[in-house]
Amino acid sequence: MSRLDVTEKIIATKVAKGLKWADVAAEIGLSKEWVTAGCLGQMTFNDEQAATLAKLFDLTETETQWLKVVPYKGSLPTSVPTDPLIYRFYELVSVYGTTFKELIHEEFGDGIMSAIDFKMDLQREANPAGDRVSIVMSGKFLPYKTY
Amino acid sequence: MSRLDVTEKIIATKVAKGLKWADVAAEIGLSKEWVTAGCLGQMTFNDEQAATLAKLFDLTETETQWLKVVPYKGSLPTSVPTDPLIYRFYELVSVYGTTFKELIHEEFGDGIMSAIDFKMDLQREANPAGDRVSIVMSGKFLPYKTY
Amino acid sequence: MSRLDVTEKIIATKVAKGLKWADVAAEIGLSKEWVTAGCLGQMTFNDEQAATLAKLFDLTETETQWLKVVPYKGSLPTSVPTDPLIYRFYELVSVYGTTFKELIHEEFGDGIMSAIDFKMDLQREANPAGDRVSIVMSGKFLPYKTY
Amino acid sequence: MSRLDVTEKIIATKVAKGLKWADVAAEIGLSKEWVTAGCLGQMTFNDEQAATLAKLFDLTETETQWLKVVPYKGSLPTSVPTDPLIYRFYELVSVYGTTFKELIHEEFGDGIMSAIDFKMDLQREANPAGDRVSIVMSGKFLPYKTY
Amino acid sequence: MSRLDVTEKIIATKVAKGLKWADVAAEIGLSKEWVTAGCLGQMTFNDEQAATLAKLFDLTETETQWLKVVPYKGSLPTSVPTDPLIYRFYELVSVYGTTFKELIHEEFGDGIMSAIDFKMDLQREANPAGDRVSIVMSGKFLPYKTY
Amino acid sequence: MSRLDVTEKIIATKVAKGLKWADVAAEIGLSKEWVTAGCLGQMTFNDEQAATLAKLFDLTETETQWLKVVPYKGSLPTSVPTDPLIYRFYELVSVYGTTFKELIHEEFGDGIMSAIDFKMDLQREANPAGDRVSIVMSGKFLPYKTY
Amino acid sequence: MSRLDVTEKIIATKVAKGLKWADVAAEIGLSKEWVTAGCLGQMTFNDEQAATLAKLFDLTETETQWLKVVPYKGSLPTSVPTDPLIYRFYELVSVYGTTFKELIHEEFGDGIMSAIDFKMDLQREANPAGDRVSIVMSGKFLPYKTY
Amino acid sequence: MSRLDVTEKIIATKVAKGLKWADVAAEIGLSKEWVTAGCLGQMTFNDEQAATLAKLFDLTETETQWLKVVPYKGSLPTSVPTDPLIYRFYELVSVYGTTFKELIHEEFGDGIMSAIDFKMDLQREANPAGDRVSIVMSGKFLPYKTY
Amino acid sequence: MSRLDVTEKIIATKVAKGLKWADVAAEIGLSKEWVTAGCLGQMTFNDEQAATLAKLFDLTETETQWLKVVPYKGSLPTSVPTDPLIYRFYELVSVYGTTFKELIHEEFGDGIMSAIDFKMDLQREANPAGDRVSIVMSGKFLPYKTY
Amino acid sequence: MSRLDVTEKIIATKVAKGLKWADVAAEIGLSKEWVTAGCLGQMTFNDEQAATLAKLFDLTETETQWLKVVPYKGSLPTSVPTDPLIYRFYELVSVYGTTFKELIHEEFGDGIMSAIDFKMDLQREANPAGDRVSIVMSGKFLPYKTY
Repeated sequence: MSRLDVTEKIIATKVAKGLKWADVAAEIGLSKEWVTAGCLGQMTFNDEQAATLAKLFDLTETETQWLKVVPYKGSLPTSVPTDPLIYRFYELVSVYGTTFKELIHEEFGDGIMSAIDFKMDLQREANPAGDRVSIVMSGKFLPYKTY
Repeated sequence: MSRLDVTEKIIATKVAKGLKWADVAAEIGLSKEWVTAGCLGQMTFNDEQAATLAKLFDLTETETQWLKVVPYKGSLPTSVPTDPLIYRFYELVSVYGTTFKELIHEEFGDGIMSAIDFKMDLQREANPAGDRVSIVMSGKFLPYKTY
Repeated sequence: MSRLDVTEKIIATKVAKGLKWADVAAEIGLSKEWVTAGCLGQMTFNDEQAATLAKLFDLTETETQWLKVVPYKGSLPTSVPTDPLIYRFYELVSVYGTTFKELIHEEFGDGIMSAIDFKMDLQREANPAGDRVSIVMSGKFLPYKTY
Repeated sequence: MSRLDVTEKIIATKVAKGLKWADVAAEIGLSKEWVTAGCLGQMTFNDEQAATLAKLFDLTETETQWLKVVPYKGSLPTSVPTDPLIYRFYELVSVYGTTFKELIHEEFGDGIMSAIDFKMDLQREANPAGDRVSIVMSGKFLPYKTY
Repeated sequence: MSRLDVTEKIIATKVAKGLKWADVAAEIGLSKEWVTAGCLGQMTFNDEQAATLAKLFDLTETETQWLKVVPYKGSLPTSVPTDPLIYRFYELVSVYGTTFKELIHEEFGDGIMSAIDFKMDLQREANPAGDRVSIVMSGKFLPYKTY
Repeated sequence: MSRLDVTEKIIATKVAKGLKWADVAAEIGLSKEWVTAGCLGQMTFNDEQAATLAKLFDLTETETQWLKVVPYKGSLPTSVPTDPLIYRFYELVSVYGTTFKELIHEEFGDGIMSAIDFKMDLQREANPAGDRVSIVMSGKFLPYKTY
Repeated sequence: MSRLDVTEKIIATKVAKGLKWADVAAEIGLSKEWVTAGCLGQMTFNDEQAATLAKLFDLTETETQWLKVVPYKGSLPTSVPTDPLIYRFYELVSVYGTTFKELIHEEFGDGIMSAIDFKMDLQREANPAGDRVSIVMSGKFLPYKTY
Repeated sequence: MSRLDVTEKIIATKVAKGLKWADVAAEIGLSKEWVTAGCLGQMTFNDEQAATLAKLFDLTETETQWLKVVPYKGSLPTSVPTDPLIYRFYELVSVYGTTFKELIHEEFGDGIMSAIDFKMDLQREANPAGDRVSIVMSGKFLPYKTY
Repeated sequence: MSRLDVTEKIIATKVAKGLKWADVAAEIGLSKEWVTAGCLGQMTFNDEQAATLAKLFDLTETETQWLKVVPYKGSLPTSVPTDPLIYRFYELVSVYGTTFKELIHEEFGDGIMSAIDFKMDLQREANPAGDRVSIVMSGKFLPYKTY
Repeated sequence: MSRLDVTEKIIATKVAKGLKWADVAAEIGLSKEWVTAGCLGQMTFNDEQAATLAKLFDLTETETQWLKVVPYKGSLPTSVPTDPLIYRFYELVSVYGTTFKELIHEEFGDGIMSAIDFKMDLQREANPAGDRVSIVMSGKFLPYKTY
């Protein structure tokens, strides 16, 4: 058994029970973004969180144990994603990648935006011309150390 | 000559003149995100915008002409970017890709967030524990057509 | 269990029962193009459609449930397809890709043809020199947003 | 000198002179799709066609000569295209590839749609909800030979 | 079950029964080249042929059914084959690829040799300096359509 | 200067002078297949052959020298060729690769068909249903050595 | 069942029984290099050899049968090997590849060293500064055929 | 200027002057294998060796300087070599890689054969059935350190 | 069964029993770095060490046997790792690779730092600005042999 | 002009002038590791540092300007490095990657070792059995944020 098996069981159970990620997150008491990423095998849960998920998804003790182990991360089967929704994000990196770089360096100097000390919020943005997806990302700026 | 040559000249002139993207954007009268992407060869300028850039970057008439031609997009030399700042964005797609997918589908059903009818805003977010990079993205949701 | 398992069961049942996609589509009441793509794991069905398919392909309740979940899309095992029929379409993108780009931009300006707000129709075109495959594609033009 | 150099000169001259592909095609007397593909280095011109292009694009005699040589085809720099417009066509192959295969085989049996004995027509399709790109493709069906 | 399973069963049964491809082809009444390719999952059989193969390889009814379904073609696990015998053919394409191109274009003009309307014959060629493999290929020339 | 430069000069001169490979081969006194491959940088010429080519293609003494040096072989820019004519040969390897393997082993046992002690002949095959390309390949069988 | 399964059983049995390749080779009466390669699924055994191996590795009749079938060769899971010992050989090809080429051509002219009519011998070479691995390779030179 | 430029000059001068690697090596006083690898940009020369090469290949002072700088090694343009002679060595690694591994570990335990503390000798081996290439390799065995 | 199966069992048992690598290493009496690498399938254990691990992880006799066989090394599923923690090490090689090369050659001349005669120590480094990971690596310098 | 041109000039000038990285670093007043990485195009210099380098390497004003611009990082031409010295570091990531992951998570929990807030020191370690390369790395641990 591995974390992947637990992830697959969570997804299958979610389909079978008709659960929603937002409700799962509410049970955990954290954002739907972080909780969903965790359920999809990208984050590590503590004892209490794992226990809550165990109930929601009918996990065995060993499966619950795996939720507390740091997973091998990376959720995509290919380096360039084939799924159209996920590809659009890859395309943003491809088209705007050098723009991100230029603007962050212009504002902060040499360094990066952390993908670890990072949070995000995804919301529906009502719009008469068609609703929009709004994503607010916030990552700590980490300057390159000189030594 | 190609758009790439014009992009390289813009970058080299910017270095030589010590210009800032924010100032270039102010001259154009649009966001720094869109204008920078355009200067880096990812967007198409109209006559007036191109004329403004021509002055700022000492472009010849032919070079200016290229700014109005739709470019072949994609700003990165490899499919998995090597630059640490840009890689962090790729990592977000890798780690959070399936999360984006689950949450957008949960809210909107089958479809995608457009990377074309899209805008974004990148700001410094002051924070006593270290300033943060804040990025607000907004893309129109496009539902899959049934036919 | 995953959507892939359901797709494989649908294909195997279709072979065993000798069904035709055109007939499956007629039962659903939508085009054979969209319905086939859906049965091959690329589209999402609603309750009624899923129920119809469940009968046709002897699906269990859980299998039927999976038909209503948005799938991870992309139907090919390699980024350059090996199957000769599918490769010819890839070859069209390879040979005519820059032509599509030039002509759409010439007519519409900077933007793309949507692959989401998209429909198509595939028909036999009788021809004394050998019948032809006729494909009519229609995708909404989406202009790049300036901001 | 190679065909690539001629293609680049044609593109650069087109930008400098502000020509349109539709007008170039009218001069040649063939479809804009085939003529554009040829000007982009994917098709072979005869003497008369090459002479017409030589005038339009100020080509030297040697450059004109290259237009009559069968080119090494394939217009894209990477096997998965990065340009968003072209990628959407690649995505259609990825998402609908197996659908094309199933429907063509259902109608015609084992074989392929030719990408050689092939023609297409790309038009604007007026639509109150936003104009659409309409593409009509026609390729001869070639049955697999049994021997 | 998929065609791949049937192919594996055919190969395993052939090994177990000590059959020869030439004999299988004689039973079918077609060339050993086409029949072998079909048994290896690359061609489609009709009812009668499938019935013959079912007897030879002890196939179940469902397995026999799969032989009549057009398979997803491509018989190699990697895009550059590792097997020395098959690699030599890949090497011929690598070394002689541009030669094939030049000579076919010189003789026929722009177009291709069909790999669909194609047949071949592989024979032992006795030779005192060591016997040789002789392969005669014949593919229809297909000219590029002008439109 | 490298062999590649000489190859490019030969191709460019051939275009400019309107030469034919068959005529070049006749001057050399060998097959058009081997001579073309050599001119395209895949074979090594002796003194006399190089001198003949030098006259035909106006080569300098150093360029002529390069024709006698064994080249780094492989004539294609990508491991999966994009050119449709060359791709069809790659497709034959992909679809028929395992068939070549089975039939050669059935006839000869373990070993390979040499791509070095190899010759081929490419001819037009008149046919009322459309002329065909006929290729006769002959390669020495090399048995795997047991030791 | 496939040859791969037989290879895995041979390896597992070797581990369980604590056999040595040198002893297996002695039973067969051939070199340890060829016999090991064969046991690892890269060579083809005759009836007598297969019977000997069947006894040593407790193979079933069908498994034994597979040893006599020419295998699909290539023993590595990735094109650039990750295992440090095997990588060092890959590195020798990478660093010395052009040197092999220059020296063999200087001595023999255009052609190759056969990897089929090939044998090798691997021995421990005692050395006070640390024992060394000594490998003697011998491959027939095959000159490129002119025709 | 880089080491690559010096390598190219050495190769071009060798062609122009008709030098032989064996003679170059004799001038240096070391093996033809090491000296050729060095001239091809894979090894580092000392002052005296560089001076000798400077005379042989008419190198400028700066070019000579580069011969003493440790180069970025790896002599092949692709990870799987296309040149048939070099590919045969790659094939040996592919087919015999796991055999090398098994036999070296059986004799020495866990560790590798060094590709650094390594030497080799390549000779013609006269043989009535056709001369052979003989290569003797000797690399120090390095045991994995336990700590 | 293969070493991979044993590695997976060790990891699963570790999760189920809540063991720590440091404790496992203490039982073996060697460093946590080497022991962890070994348990993850990268090193070879002797009889005594294997027996200790068998007890800790409830291994069968055959599983224990596999621990003493030299494994096929390389612990990552992709050549560019997707896991953020491991990627940072890859990034260090990418960003600092040429720096390692320059500084080691400046100090030692041409050669490498051994990854075989190598050891390392990983520790927490307390720091008021946030604790740090400290890694001390020590590898023998191996000079390139001249011959 | 780009940063790459400046890097190449610095390397060429260093070769021509016979400078040492340690001396360059002493002039800058920072570690040889950081300064070398910067000179190789991976770090950003401030005004004073750039002025010092300008003198040492005879840089023009524009070249000096480039040293202050944040570069596009990644110093290697291929994703798996071919140079043996650099490959050994890649091999350490490949062999020890999962070990790094396990031990850092065991000590710190979920998170990464920063490659940005990072420093290192490379020294010769005298040893009678052969001197060793000693590298001390120190990177801040960054815990994954929960939100």
